[in-house]
Amino acid sequence: MSAAATPVRGEHDVLSTLEIAQAAKSAARVLAPLSEPRRNAALEAMAKALEGASAALFAANAEDLKVAGSLTGDEVLSAATLARLKLTEGKLREMVEQVRSVMALPDPLGRTLDAVELDDCDPERSKTQISHSTIAQGNDNKKTSGLHMEKISVPLGVLAVIFEARPDAVTQIAALAIKSGNAVILKPGREVERTATALVRVLRAALEAEGISASAVSLVLGRERVNELLAMHSLVDMVIPRGTKKLVEYVQANTRIPVLGHAEGVCHIYVDRAADEEIALRVIDDAKTDYPAACNAVETVLVHAEIAAEFVPKLAERMRERGVVLHGDVVARAMMGLQSALPVDAWHMEYGELEMAVGIVPSLDEAMEHIHRHGSVHTESVITEDAEVAERFLREVDAASVMHNASTRFADGFRYGFGAEVGISTSKFHARGPVGLDGLTTYKYVVRGAGHVAGDYRGAQGRAFTHRRASEAR
Amino acid sequence: MSAAATPVRGEHDVLSTLEIAQAAKSAARVLAPLSEPRRNAALEAMAKALEGASAALFAANAEDLKVAGSLTGDEVLSAATLARLKLTEGKLREMVEQVRSVMALPDPLGRTLDAVELDDCDPERSKTQISHSTIAQGNDNKKTSGLHMEKISVPLGVLAVIFEARPDAVTQIAALAIKSGNAVILKPGREVERTATALVRVLRAALEAEGISASAVSLVLGRERVNELLAMHSLVDMVIPRGTKKLVEYVQANTRIPVLGHAEGVCHIYVDRAADEEIALRVIDDAKTDYPAACNAVETVLVHAEIAAEFVPKLAERMRERGVVLHGDVVARAMMGLQSALPVDAWHMEYGELEMAVGIVPSLDEAMEHIHRHGSVHTESVITEDAEVAERFLREVDAASVMHNASTRFADGFRYGFGAEVGISTSKFHARGPVGLDGLTTYKYVVRGAGHVAGDYRGAQGRAFTHRRASEAR
Repeated sequence: MSAAATPVRGEHDVLSTLEIAQAAKSAARVLAPLSEPRRNAALEAMAKALEGASAALFAANAEDLKVAGSLTGDEVLSAATLARLKLTEGKLREMVEQVRSVMALPDPLGRTLDAVELDDCDPERSKTQISHSTIAQGNDNKKTSGLHMEKISVPLGVLAVIFEARPDAVTQIAALAIKSGNAVILKPGREVERTATALVRVLRAALEAEGISASAVSLVLGRERVNELLAMHSLVDMVIPRGTKKLVEYVQANTRIPVLGHAEGVCHIYVDRAADEEIALRVIDDAKTDYPAACNAVETVLVHAEIAAEFVPKLAERMRERGVVLHGDVVARAMMGLQSALPVDAWHMEYGELEMAVGIVPSLDEAMEHIHRHGSVHTESVITEDAEVAERFLREVDAASVMHNASTRFADGFRYGFGAEVGISTSKFHARGPVGLDGLTTYKYVVRGAGHVAGDYRGAQGRAFTHRRASEAR
Repeated sequence: MSAAATPVRGEHDVLSTLEIAQAAKSAARVLAPLSEPRRNAALEAMAKALEGASAALFAANAEDLKVAGSLTGDEVLSAATLARLKLTEGKLREMVEQVRSVMALPDPLGRTLDAVELDDCDPERSKTQISHSTIAQGNDNKKTSGLHMEKISVPLGVLAVIFEARPDAVTQIAALAIKSGNAVILKPGREVERTATALVRVLRAALEAEGISASAVSLVLGRERVNELLAMHSLVDMVIPRGTKKLVEYVQANTRIPVLGHAEGVCHIYVDRAADEEIALRVIDDAKTDYPAACNAVETVLVHAEIAAEFVPKLAERMRERGVVLHGDVVARAMMGLQSALPVDAWHMEYGELEMAVGIVPSLDEAMEHIHRHGSVHTESVITEDAEVAERFLREVDAASVMHNASTRFADGFRYGFGAEVGISTSKFHARGPVGLDGLTTYKYVVRGAGHVAGDYRGAQGRAFTHRRASEAR
């Protein structure tokens, strides 16, 4: 493995993880108040720089591929991983297009999420203040009188993203971060270290040329750096693990920093007794076979007992045509002509391939009970023509996405119209379900007064708050 | 301490913490889909039951007071704690009023936070489906065609609230939980255990009379129960510690469950060189003396060097009149005639009483740098008549609330017009700043289709999403 010895050079060689994180925090402070045109100009510079640096990028990628090719034994990469790792002309073009498409998204920052007039009057001023007020009028021409609160979207600060063998993850994540005014620290998988280093070098140069600190996009290499990052809860505002269930669970268990992501997607489709059979078959087929490795693919189908004898054999036939391996509870197995016993943990399994479990339930309530017991609060769908059943399912099932007569595969940022997807969250906090640029923002309350003090609003003789929302403004 | 031996009886005697949390989770599932009238009826029943149970409540409180009075040595409670602990006719009346005022707040559940039409057409159905469709029409009369996504506010699930000696915390928290469709597990401070047990018994009976599971409001006693609750991240959705900085930090360090709260409020006021002196003095006076123990009281005042020689002596005079103990950096000390050295950690200190530090800064940038280094991202205010300085401060300072010419004391749920306050969050996640009922909710995506499958939207020949938002609907 001589190729592996080629050193990977970057700022990560000379700076500690702490220094990198501190520099990222400083860069984030400068990035946050930048106007949208400035942030978009940085994205355009990044796109152009990538186009201009293709030779260096392909050279770095060739080194990664050479190392990958020299691996032996357990370390040998799958064909799929090698394909993801390889940077092609087409892939680089797509990466550049993706940066420009993030640029075209609406600005997630500075949106007014709420606006309340707390009082419509200014406090009385003493005579000595008249001169000051006169000075003020020149500067402050958009100011209205009174006390006003606005809730404004702002960036989170510093993101740490831990990902695997994809070169395109570097440019996509960097673009999302810059668009949303966040600094980002990237930790790529070992396989893609040389390509990631070359990409980050190009992006940093582009940022600097636009007068933005290169520390807005940083790289760290090596597994020990992950643990250092996870401990920095005063510098890193969010960790986004993009990878295997094992990686996500490791990150969740080893940091106090909020984690955006999901460890698993065990999605269900419940076929009600009032289901349209054709819809049920179409939707299950799509939800299982459209992209079985996706987290929003279906893993378990629950069928109402009243229609099971008719429906389950048809489902089994359709699934077998599509090459799906089936499991089932004792009743479903009989209906599907299966001999094999139900695997242990079959109901908790994210198969991630053409494999699926079928269960028979006596009622909607039992179906929901099964989903709550075994599901991962990701995406759950009901197939029924009974509007009451549909509404109960949509209302009562606790999951990030709930669907009626539609494939679980629609739970996706692009399909929901968010433009770009940061990930899918099964947390109930901050961002739930498919997460777009908004998931990389928080908000702050901005209060504008003219010397207003809380003591004036105290007790029976105190002033009363007006609490008018913008829509109710006079 | 014979009085302390009186046993405190409740369901917590016979059930394990796990059983209580599991029952709370089940209750939460039933509570979540309840209509607003049902939840409000439960709140009215709770208010009435409290009015009717005053004798039992005062008797339980008398026992708590007796135990409190028998404490010796380090355990002796302060006069302030005893006052908070004592249940009076007036306090009980206020508690009942508070339950009714929560009832009167707008429903935080079922709000449509976003709505996107993903497609305006249904997939083509085969002929065999016509009969099914005919059946469907009777039930499903509000259904329009196409694929639609809505983002709807829903409860979090199970809240665990750890609080101290206040009987009124029990009723306030229970009311907020029921209004927002959440189950709650209450862990009161040791001093208030008997009163809390009596209050919870009354509330549970009222819920049961309304056909709602008593497990929607549960009680656990004893410190070891806290650690058990903090470990239950699959059953408890949010922990709200209400108490000392020590309690909050303990909870934050010892759970993977999201924590709503803040460990400290080190708030700053920056007096710019273009400040209106009278406004600066009024605002600082209010921010420090209106309620010094509050987390939104000011702890540090930063003064621009150009006006310091004139302003700082006036500030010192005003603060001394109000009984405020002052600290300062070397320059400020000279201007205030102070001999004492600056205490170690003075800039990080949440004094919580009539005590304050004053620093001199050469520029707005240095002021913001100081705030970012020493602040707790809670509430920061700028006093200036220079609109440009104000806008830079409001935009660039990273804190939950930022203010211009207004007292930091306005950072409060009631003052912001939220009706009820759950707490103030200095986290950037989920809920930031003053948190009202909305902070006890999350959302889910609800998708309604007619057999739509993702495969139909794949590739160049696939259908295109319409992605129309409600406001742009035809």
